Amino acid sequence: MKININADIGEGFGKFRMGSDEELMRLIGSANIACGMHAGDPTIMVQTVELAKRENVSIGAHPGFNDVWGFGRRQIRMNPVDLEHSVTYQIGALQALAASRGARVTHVKPHGALNNMAHDDIDVAMAVGRGIKAADPGLIFVANVGSQMTRAGESLGLRIANESYVDRRYDDNGKMLSRELDNAVIRSPEEASEHVVRILEEGALFSVNGKRIPAEVHTFCIHGDEPTAVPVMKAVRAKLADRNIEVVTIPQMLGVDA
Amino acid sequence: MKININADIGEGFGKFRMGSDEELMRLIGSANIACGMHAGDPTIMVQTVELAKRENVSIGAHPGFNDVWGFGRRQIRMNPVDLEHSVTYQIGALQALAASRGARVTHVKPHGALNNMAHDDIDVAMAVGRGIKAADPGLIFVANVGSQMTRAGESLGLRIANESYVDRRYDDNGKMLSRELDNAVIRSPEEASEHVVRILEEGALFSVNGKRIPAEVHTFCIHGDEPTAVPVMKAVRAKLADRNIEVVTIPQMLGVDA
Amino acid sequence: MKININADIGEGFGKFRMGSDEELMRLIGSANIACGMHAGDPTIMVQTVELAKRENVSIGAHPGFNDVWGFGRRQIRMNPVDLEHSVTYQIGALQALAASRGARVTHVKPHGALNNMAHDDIDVAMAVGRGIKAADPGLIFVANVGSQMTRAGESLGLRIANESYVDRRYDDNGKMLSRELDNAVIRSPEEASEHVVRILEEGALFSVNGKRIPAEVHTFCIHGDEPTAVPVMKAVRAKLADRNIEVVTIPQMLGVDA
Amino acid sequence: MKININADIGEGFGKFRMGSDEELMRLIGSANIACGMHAGDPTIMVQTVELAKRENVSIGAHPGFNDVWGFGRRQIRMNPVDLEHSVTYQIGALQALAASRGARVTHVKPHGALNNMAHDDIDVAMAVGRGIKAADPGLIFVANVGSQMTRAGESLGLRIANESYVDRRYDDNGKMLSRELDNAVIRSPEEASEHVVRILEEGALFSVNGKRIPAEVHTFCIHGDEPTAVPVMKAVRAKLADRNIEVVTIPQMLGVDA
Repeated sequence: MKININADIGEGFGKFRMGSDEELMRLIGSANIACGMHAGDPTIMVQTVELAKRENVSIGAHPGFNDVWGFGRRQIRMNPVDLEHSVTYQIGALQALAASRGARVTHVKPHGALNNMAHDDIDVAMAVGRGIKAADPGLIFVANVGSQMTRAGESLGLRIANESYVDRRYDDNGKMLSRELDNAVIRSPEEASEHVVRILEEGALFSVNGKRIPAEVHTFCIHGDEPTAVPVMKAVRAKLADRNIEVVTIPQMLGVDA
Repeated sequence: MKININADIGEGFGKFRMGSDEELMRLIGSANIACGMHAGDPTIMVQTVELAKRENVSIGAHPGFNDVWGFGRRQIRMNPVDLEHSVTYQIGALQALAASRGARVTHVKPHGALNNMAHDDIDVAMAVGRGIKAADPGLIFVANVGSQMTRAGESLGLRIANESYVDRRYDDNGKMLSRELDNAVIRSPEEASEHVVRILEEGALFSVNGKRIPAEVHTFCIHGDEPTAVPVMKAVRAKLADRNIEVVTIPQMLGVDA
Repeated sequence: MKININADIGEGFGKFRMGSDEELMRLIGSANIACGMHAGDPTIMVQTVELAKRENVSIGAHPGFNDVWGFGRRQIRMNPVDLEHSVTYQIGALQALAASRGARVTHVKPHGALNNMAHDDIDVAMAVGRGIKAADPGLIFVANVGSQMTRAGESLGLRIANESYVDRRYDDNGKMLSRELDNAVIRSPEEASEHVVRILEEGALFSVNGKRIPAEVHTFCIHGDEPTAVPVMKAVRAKLADRNIEVVTIPQMLGVDA
Repeated sequence: MKININADIGEGFGKFRMGSDEELMRLIGSANIACGMHAGDPTIMVQTVELAKRENVSIGAHPGFNDVWGFGRRQIRMNPVDLEHSVTYQIGALQALAASRGARVTHVKPHGALNNMAHDDIDVAMAVGRGIKAADPGLIFVANVGSQMTRAGESLGLRIANESYVDRRYDDNGKMLSRELDNAVIRSPEEASEHVVRILEEGALFSVNGKRIPAEVHTFCIHGDEPTAVPVMKAVRAKLADRNIEVVTIPQMLGVDA
């Protein structure tokens, strides 16, 4: 058995740093690299590519809204054409920087508010999907389980990696609880480990009310900006090792040659 | 006989427009497309690629400093590593957007203050050259005749297109007169046409004092933001047609397959 | 009888220009000056202050979202605290630049998507209102007739100038027709003049269906980026002169000492 | 005897943080608050004003180049008019936000590359000085001892606070050693304390070669982004207390009513 773990990495900007990239990179299978619009300047992008390569972590583009101040977490109502081209722009920038280090971009995951909007709004999801396909139709679209992104990716013929979270709880409709709720985030290493293994072994998510929601998950996201990220991931890795579940890259998870 | 004419195109930003892109695109052989840092948002980049393709104009990246306010015309003292990666970033963004339209980036020309700094400063020129090579070692570096860019490009093994200007005069050292001097810019259509043809037929630039400076020129730049650009270019094209000098793309000029 | 006409002015950025500031400034009573976030760099702000002063036009701040690419016309879901402080920031910047020219900021009008959001959303309207009050409680809040901005401004004790448009039609609820509808914008100079005078003389707006909606209007906005702005305004001024309706500044309109 | 200590504070941006503002604020007499161009968004500016007020620290504007990526540490060759107005813009923004918290901006200190350029280049120094004077001729210009800023400030009739550094060594001309030299920065708490007290008691700087350079210093800057900043400042405060040297605000130091 195998699974992918992904995290957003390289989200510093100039002199500013965010998260524990070096430690986290050793604990994941795939890195979502910020592409300069919400975070991630060109030099940080190259350094993050190099770090991912050293740790045998597959590389994804992590496009976001053009808003460093808001760290890409403020919704911006872009028209779909601008959004589509902005996604391609960001992926292309990372593709060139990755190629310069002998690496290749194999997946794309939208960042922050863009991810949230694409989760629910098919027009946003389609614009993101078209932007991905324009950059490379072989790119894997990392999409929240059950979201409009999955629908959009499928209608565009993109490969989809179904994503769930290491550290988030769900409601009865299979949607993540809002972070404004106290119990939305799982910060206990043991609980997070149980949570991940249960989803994998049961082939289903479980809501906070115990409801079973069937779901084939290819990749779990860990939020690198939570201070508990590293201890949580260490516990998850230990638990996965216990169960002989291997952590692989996203292309390996989908059986795609990369 | 043949020659290339290039111009900076797609230098609007959002709702802002700059120059007469549609008219100029019909008069040139190669377009330097702004890449989002000093001008040129992703949608304008795509529209400009489409326009170039329609007019059989070859496509180049036109990377600049990250300064929309200054339109890339203010020198920014970046460290060479940041500059190198910023150049690759901008080229990569355009490569992906061009590919989405079935087009290809075949040359690179630095913009504004970056071009001026790279003209004189070998460290800046080398950083730009490395940034180009990282994106694609087959890219043609459009470099002012006799500049440090030529030296840098050669030392990196890049193909060089030697550039002169349709509308600028030179001093005895082969350097362009500063725009602060009254006679720096040639705005008369007839004079510009004579100027271009003379350089081509003599294989040399001529300084304002009449000094002959041997120079093999592959491409002439026309400044699209001068209000005289379109009438000047029409006169130049007519004169070139008179002399049976064909206007070709930069790859055609260098005999490179594109 | 008297009325104010306002327009958004100084919406260029660096080398980019927008609208016909010089011509329009001679036709209005108050200028809404862009403050650097969606357009309007510090030098353009000073030049626009000087132009307004020369034409005896009163000065307002025109704060917008931090999005030059989107020209402030894309909704950004800022948290209310960030929005409040961003409004104060922009007003303060203009206050200092105006003071350096012996001028004073007397009103504030939100720009583009911020205005649209504040029109309907009381939380956004209150954040804008608090941002204005923080900069100077004597500032006049220019607010669309019947909008949440009016409510917010009143609850904060700000003076309100009720705003309607020279060039827009209304539905039966007194809301402007969406620009997506063909008949939303009035581009005919005669029709715009009739429209303005009728509202003033009747003390009411009239919907496209002829419904009468009582409204005391203090100021009419003319959209400077419409190509018809200057001819429309000339016709409006002629018609107002015919009826002996004087065009005054916003402080004069409200009987406030400025 | 009395002295001022200043530090750059509030240099985060959005979700990004820089330095230990809370701790440092308790150890200084005056805070240079970033104004949004190189760092410091409007909300951070307000929070920093509130923090300064709580700790009885006087408030200064810390204008920088418009370059978050470069953290204002890259030289940008702005024209003097743009620079002047950009300085006024940034001060004005802080003035309004400070006033909203019942506080007042009493000094200005340029940031990073702008400070370095103004140190040596009289045109840059004059542009900064004019920008300060335009915002408020009563503002105190914090200027490196012996720099062109001092000259510019004096010629404009501004009050000057002569600045030296808690943590930097000097050459025989009274210029700080370049940070590229190993011994440029003083990181030892004891050595920094001795250094500060010696300058104060001798009324002179001492070069690395022991040369005495007479200098009346009103304020010492501590670099908040050095990891040693807090321990160094604690030692300096202890040593100053030992010698009965009081740490005061910049207006108190200059005997100006604030």
